[in-house]
Amino acid sequence: MVREFESSSYWALILGGSSGLGLASAFKLARHGMNICIVHRNGRAEAEAIEKEFKKIRQTGIKLLTFNTDVVKAESRERIVKTLKEEFASTGKLRCLLHSIAKGNLKTLVPIDRQVLEGPDFALTLENMAVSLSEWTKEIFLAGLFADDARVLSFTSEGASKAWQGYTAVSAAKAALEAISRGIASEYAPYGIRANCIQAGVTDTLSLQKIPESDSLIEQSIKRNPFNRLTRPEDVANVVYLLCKDEAAWINGSVIPVNGGEHIH
Amino acid sequence: MVREFESSSYWALILGGSSGLGLASAFKLARHGMNICIVHRNGRAEAEAIEKEFKKIRQTGIKLLTFNTDVVKAESRERIVKTLKEEFASTGKLRCLLHSIAKGNLKTLVPIDRQVLEGPDFALTLENMAVSLSEWTKEIFLAGLFADDARVLSFTSEGASKAWQGYTAVSAAKAALEAISRGIASEYAPYGIRANCIQAGVTDTLSLQKIPESDSLIEQSIKRNPFNRLTRPEDVANVVYLLCKDEAAWINGSVIPVNGGEHIH
Amino acid sequence: MVREFESSSYWALILGGSSGLGLASAFKLARHGMNICIVHRNGRAEAEAIEKEFKKIRQTGIKLLTFNTDVVKAESRERIVKTLKEEFASTGKLRCLLHSIAKGNLKTLVPIDRQVLEGPDFALTLENMAVSLSEWTKEIFLAGLFADDARVLSFTSEGASKAWQGYTAVSAAKAALEAISRGIASEYAPYGIRANCIQAGVTDTLSLQKIPESDSLIEQSIKRNPFNRLTRPEDVANVVYLLCKDEAAWINGSVIPVNGGEHIH
Amino acid sequence: MVREFESSSYWALILGGSSGLGLASAFKLARHGMNICIVHRNGRAEAEAIEKEFKKIRQTGIKLLTFNTDVVKAESRERIVKTLKEEFASTGKLRCLLHSIAKGNLKTLVPIDRQVLEGPDFALTLENMAVSLSEWTKEIFLAGLFADDARVLSFTSEGASKAWQGYTAVSAAKAALEAISRGIASEYAPYGIRANCIQAGVTDTLSLQKIPESDSLIEQSIKRNPFNRLTRPEDVANVVYLLCKDEAAWINGSVIPVNGGEHIH
Repeated sequence: MVREFESSSYWALILGGSSGLGLASAFKLARHGMNICIVHRNGRAEAEAIEKEFKKIRQTGIKLLTFNTDVVKAESRERIVKTLKEEFASTGKLRCLLHSIAKGNLKTLVPIDRQVLEGPDFALTLENMAVSLSEWTKEIFLAGLFADDARVLSFTSEGASKAWQGYTAVSAAKAALEAISRGIASEYAPYGIRANCIQAGVTDTLSLQKIPESDSLIEQSIKRNPFNRLTRPEDVANVVYLLCKDEAAWINGSVIPVNGGEHIH
Repeated sequence: MVREFESSSYWALILGGSSGLGLASAFKLARHGMNICIVHRNGRAEAEAIEKEFKKIRQTGIKLLTFNTDVVKAESRERIVKTLKEEFASTGKLRCLLHSIAKGNLKTLVPIDRQVLEGPDFALTLENMAVSLSEWTKEIFLAGLFADDARVLSFTSEGASKAWQGYTAVSAAKAALEAISRGIASEYAPYGIRANCIQAGVTDTLSLQKIPESDSLIEQSIKRNPFNRLTRPEDVANVVYLLCKDEAAWINGSVIPVNGGEHIH
Repeated sequence: MVREFESSSYWALILGGSSGLGLASAFKLARHGMNICIVHRNGRAEAEAIEKEFKKIRQTGIKLLTFNTDVVKAESRERIVKTLKEEFASTGKLRCLLHSIAKGNLKTLVPIDRQVLEGPDFALTLENMAVSLSEWTKEIFLAGLFADDARVLSFTSEGASKAWQGYTAVSAAKAALEAISRGIASEYAPYGIRANCIQAGVTDTLSLQKIPESDSLIEQSIKRNPFNRLTRPEDVANVVYLLCKDEAAWINGSVIPVNGGEHIH
Repeated sequence: MVREFESSSYWALILGGSSGLGLASAFKLARHGMNICIVHRNGRAEAEAIEKEFKKIRQTGIKLLTFNTDVVKAESRERIVKTLKEEFASTGKLRCLLHSIAKGNLKTLVPIDRQVLEGPDFALTLENMAVSLSEWTKEIFLAGLFADDARVLSFTSEGASKAWQGYTAVSAAKAALEAISRGIASEYAPYGIRANCIQAGVTDTLSLQKIPESDSLIEQSIKRNPFNRLTRPEDVANVVYLLCKDEAAWINGSVIPVNGGEHIH
């Protein structure tokens, strides 16, 4: 294992890093010597299990900071960025901002039962899963924390360009997230920031299990996938790692499918 | 001129119909016998000019209802749908809901001057230009106003998948609008509703003129376009008309470029 | 039924017009007063059935020319265009060139049995299903037969951007066809020609039945389709008709899905 | 520099490796310990300069085989694969087949001068730039040379989905190449092969200089690019390297833009 990020005093800030793709990415980056800051939102019941994971990350020898708070609150954002600034002092640099927030609404559109999408459902989903990427990028930029060559990464899904039952608010948010990622790729390029989305295949995470009919989605996805299995968090974390390497500097403004080829079937 | 919609008691409800693509569509549909309801938002200074346009529409012999109000207010929506229900009585049917709302924020992302996109800017743009499509569709559906074979149309732009300076909030909203249109295309299909987006080319409308650097965008677009001219509102209105015809019933969930081929250069 | 093409002395030349999408388009256009020239390739066993169809087209009152020959032979092309030129005399004009050729190879890629795609298989498929569009457009242009506002239309499928078992040569040809259509849209625009592809949904035609596993494709497509049925040739013919109308003049260089929304699921 | 491919006895076979993207990729992979086989086609005048480059590759300490021959000739292909099989003996494995063939025709479509695309021009371009990928993959597979986890990579361009003057045959070939790459990604997945296309930005190579109006394309590309420079062969070679790493195993059937974000403007 090469710890290529070690000597660089690089950090990754992971929004939504206590499970699924975010947590797997934290592990992978930590193993390569990147310091990690995780922002997550969990109740007491989950605290012990999560602490175990964080302990394992610390055992890789890197620095780990964690914040249990709401990522869309301006005051949380400001407090965390301030803490990071102190921690970084003059040497630390943020190499990677990773957006892995999956707080959205899974109601349907047609008003035939009570579980129908209303304006505020859309607003909450869009704020959490899309607009927050712009807000965090701005805050970190203002604090001067980004490395000279930095990466803003976020997770999208094939559902951004499809219509899955009960997924419309999330689909809209993922589509908006991709647009915001492109905006960052364009406007922050002069400051050395590259922004890309990873379009992860169907992965058996907590977020997936909340989708109505996730069972049939899983079954279909296994059948569809050229490798006849679901995407695993590690598959995606591997590509987060690749995109953090120097050699990925010319990838910018892209949406990269990481799904074994699921999207071509 | 064939007035094929005349005998059908068909109506089109146009959100944002007092200028640009919305107004041109109103004219084209009226000339083919479709009754029109326009929702718009204009101040007193513009009232006289707009009334002249409305008068011309009425001269085609169809019924025209107009409402000067804010399209995203729930109470406006409810009042208008209620009025339409009374007007339709037992015979009228909504053939077409056309979304032509261009109320968005044109600030930039990077916080180097005061005109930077904040959370509320995104929220306003997304609510007006995207989420409102779902809200109106729902309200009309609940009132039972849609024809057995109805069309939900909305306007998007190439900017939904690009990154133009100062266009990120609108880009996110257009991308979200396309996703919501696909959601409607999927979930309302059992009720005979077809939903599609028209990706209009760069058109010299009031909305365009508000975009920073619109001059260079216009110049570039003329050069890029295989026909070496900008898109005109009439070009787009013509396709709104085609998509309202019976023969377009199998087009659903699509984004159709109407731009002379601008997008291939 | 409005016969809007009648007074214009308009013609449509349909390559592959004796069955499926091509034949349905011939019917629809004929019913609206367009004269038709069909090029097809059929053996004696099918002659009688096809003649019956042609007879029905003639009964709409338009002129019908038919040629039973190989569309990719240069000499056939030259002979047919020459005949059309004489037939048109000074009044006729080609409004629509419709490419509906489905002669391709359905072998697989991996050399584990004898039915594997070889170079010549690709070459034959690409020549018939893609390059022929350029060759016919050129021949007709040189003869001066195109109307001032003309349409070059061709049929593609979702398979152009997917990977279906045994479909790789056809997929490559459809992707190449779309590229050639864009090339025509760009380079022939100064001469008033608009070129577009219709991406037809899965339709139960002779071509489909030749695809290995077409049964499962059909079953899946019915399930996928928001309207829970396959695409019918008439659905697609309807859009060929819309694209031939004056109002479609600003649609150029596009790929338009006509599939009830199948592609969003 | 980590030579992670060294211990694995991995080889890369590069079709079109004596200049541009292919040569830069050879260098990058060699520096990380990959053995290289280059197939190229050059005349005597270029021999000396190319030998110098090959010498530099050898100085990295890896094995280099080179063949100066026509890549689309079946006998060349068979001979080279046979030689590789002997060279590999029981230990060597092909980790990467890289397709970098840029032999195409740059004529226009409209027959107004003598330089117009004819059927054979399309055929030659499609055979070299697209079909050859399938032929080489098949030959190597039959010889059992692929590693258990192998990569089939090829270079495409934004022109595959655009219409650039004089680029139609190449555009068709690139679109077909992408389709064939998807076919390989799908049908060879059970054998551990991953296939992807890299969509390189406008790069100042010999191939570019042959495109008519390449000067204006270069100027425009610099202006368009968020980083205001052209793509360099090294930028692309870096991503070839990333895609050869173990961590890229779940990227399959994709087209990855490597252009600094050029495509979003």
